[in-house]
Amino acid sequence: MATFWAIEGGVTAPLGWQAGAVAAGIKPSGKLDLILICSDQPAVTAGVFTTNLVRAASVDYDEQRLAQESHGRAIVINAGNANAATGQAGVEAVTQTAQIFAELLNLDPAEILVASTGVIGVPLPMAKIQQAAPQLVTTLSPTGSELAAQAILTTDLTVKTRALEANIDGHPVRMGAIAKGSGMIHPNMATLLAFITCDAAVEPDLWRDLLRAANTVSFNQITVDGDTSTNDLVLALSNGRAENPTVTDPASLAARLLGEMLTTLCIDLAKMVARDGEGATKLVEVQVTGARDAQSARQVARTVASSSLFKAALFGCDPNWGRIAAAAGRAGVPFAPQRLAVWLGEVQLMAEGTPLPFDRPAAVTYLKNPTVLVRLDLGGGQGQGTAWGCDLTYDYVRINGEYTT
Amino acid sequence: MATFWAIEGGVTAPLGWQAGAVAAGIKPSGKLDLILICSDQPAVTAGVFTTNLVRAASVDYDEQRLAQESHGRAIVINAGNANAATGQAGVEAVTQTAQIFAELLNLDPAEILVASTGVIGVPLPMAKIQQAAPQLVTTLSPTGSELAAQAILTTDLTVKTRALEANIDGHPVRMGAIAKGSGMIHPNMATLLAFITCDAAVEPDLWRDLLRAANTVSFNQITVDGDTSTNDLVLALSNGRAENPTVTDPASLAARLLGEMLTTLCIDLAKMVARDGEGATKLVEVQVTGARDAQSARQVARTVASSSLFKAALFGCDPNWGRIAAAAGRAGVPFAPQRLAVWLGEVQLMAEGTPLPFDRPAAVTYLKNPTVLVRLDLGGGQGQGTAWGCDLTYDYVRINGEYTT
Repeated sequence: MATFWAIEGGVTAPLGWQAGAVAAGIKPSGKLDLILICSDQPAVTAGVFTTNLVRAASVDYDEQRLAQESHGRAIVINAGNANAATGQAGVEAVTQTAQIFAELLNLDPAEILVASTGVIGVPLPMAKIQQAAPQLVTTLSPTGSELAAQAILTTDLTVKTRALEANIDGHPVRMGAIAKGSGMIHPNMATLLAFITCDAAVEPDLWRDLLRAANTVSFNQITVDGDTSTNDLVLALSNGRAENPTVTDPASLAARLLGEMLTTLCIDLAKMVARDGEGATKLVEVQVTGARDAQSARQVARTVASSSLFKAALFGCDPNWGRIAAAAGRAGVPFAPQRLAVWLGEVQLMAEGTPLPFDRPAAVTYLKNPTVLVRLDLGGGQGQGTAWGCDLTYDYVRINGEYTT
Repeated sequence: MATFWAIEGGVTAPLGWQAGAVAAGIKPSGKLDLILICSDQPAVTAGVFTTNLVRAASVDYDEQRLAQESHGRAIVINAGNANAATGQAGVEAVTQTAQIFAELLNLDPAEILVASTGVIGVPLPMAKIQQAAPQLVTTLSPTGSELAAQAILTTDLTVKTRALEANIDGHPVRMGAIAKGSGMIHPNMATLLAFITCDAAVEPDLWRDLLRAANTVSFNQITVDGDTSTNDLVLALSNGRAENPTVTDPASLAARLLGEMLTTLCIDLAKMVARDGEGATKLVEVQVTGARDAQSARQVARTVASSSLFKAALFGCDPNWGRIAAAAGRAGVPFAPQRLAVWLGEVQLMAEGTPLPFDRPAAVTYLKNPTVLVRLDLGGGQGQGTAWGCDLTYDYVRINGEYTT
């Protein structure tokens, strides 16, 4: 059976990858805010992008790039400015950013991807980026992932990084990632950015399919506050430096292994993002079984994880199965309420749509854990799915509602 | 042109209607909790019900009743117990409630409707209801609306009542209503209940269509926390006591007037419910124009009004147009972001998808008003729609997240 294991090194764990970061002055705090991730040879590139119609210029740019070109070499990321809703100035800023770094790295601008997170409505300060760019290139290092993982954060409290290794057809293959989650740059919104590097040789269409499949069960299944950012994106690049025989057959063991690594990596990062949601004190995992199909199960799981009433109860350590059942009922997925079963951790709260007597103090104590598991069985099929979220706290309101005077 | 005017009297304003309430001991506080609204002759009856799959027994009961029978005489309402997720015991409790009051009022059980709000998962305490029923009947009064409006409240802070009068074909016609909104009975959820009485003579199918149309632009357009209750319902009964020629033609002036009265009544009550949302300090009205059609406009308006990020900004008096634009962009309605315009009150914040400079302190001051207007123009058609919501506050988290130990 396919196996893989965790390693250190984040996005610079795979062969041929370097990363670096500088403080370009985009974040008012003066912290690191401009990041470069770079491969020493062209990498098969895939991406998934926010479904929001109001999108950052970089999101449009990357999506167009990927539609035309299957390979890329470098990603330039800035934190502190989302470059969203900035009109033509924003579009030009992205093009110019790609040009600046293409020149410095001696690449084609088409090989450069761009990502942004931060305040909305302000065009990128191009003079600052231009000035900091040469220095940023000098920071590139095969151990630079940690610095990059720090620099992409906004109000995130924790660094989000992970790397895995496997043996594919006799070759060690590595995959690494960094992400940022639900922090807010005054005065705007949470953004999910994730960057995945790999050294496997893999066929572009297969790589894209593997990323989409992994994203469906990971980043698409987390919720902090139900708001989809203008800037969300996940980019995955694999440069072939592992020199394994190129993975092309989706049914092969190698493809399945790559897919499992990608899925594990994305789920791990997604959970880190949910746990570090704005104001969150705990992670909740909502598992749904017995649905008509996997998509229905995922939808019910997402709806429960995003219910404000349930999230507030979670904060208050209130074993409120009524809110769980009610959220499931409004998910837009047909099921028979009289077959519904609900568990909190190991304790069953509801069976056949009817509440069970349960040890309430024990349930309250369970809810004080930093990770809480909620399970629902809809009793109507083989579909299963999982979603992750966090509690709704005073701090969420404080962070997002502070008087700006 | 059709006109109507406000009058006093709530659900007992129309001819032939009486209401009463007693404390049956269902609310632990000992407050009024059992309510009866009664017509002295059969009334054309229409209802709209929660779309949640997990529903209270009374909701199922009423919907089945209305599918079989176009007329009703009385509504029995209890507060303090939702009788939801109570299995067979809950179903029997509703049937028994109807029988008890049918006997006391000398009616057919099929003429009685039942509604509940309160804690989930506990069957109705039938002994208490049985015991209090005779006394409840003695409280019936043609000026009893105020008492009934008080008694249906749970953690609502304000009574929600309204009545209107018009002249239809030479006859004075009255319409009245009471509602309860987003209060929570420990440990459970917000419920919207609204009861509308009328003395017009109207054809049953037309009455049903008028209620659905009114509901679409009123109760369906308010959001407090995005959670749909198991118990939500709106019932509208019209007993013909005004002795107007029966309204049958949807295109007639009389039908249009009835429809406008019903719509006005429902919008007024819906706004009262949104303003009194759990923890809310202000009402927000989101108007959307320039959509492909009215449904799209309503959907964008609802999405903005329910965005947690926007609601927290509203609480913090932060003129965060980025969150408004971003919420519109994820509403699932196609529009061209580069045509988007946004106003806060009279101040335009965004034009052609690009932020405008604006007087920030003035905008912050505007946001301190108890009612805030947000307007979006999507620049893509004639569709318009409105939604109402409230801010997300520390108190919402406190009310719904209190430790239950």
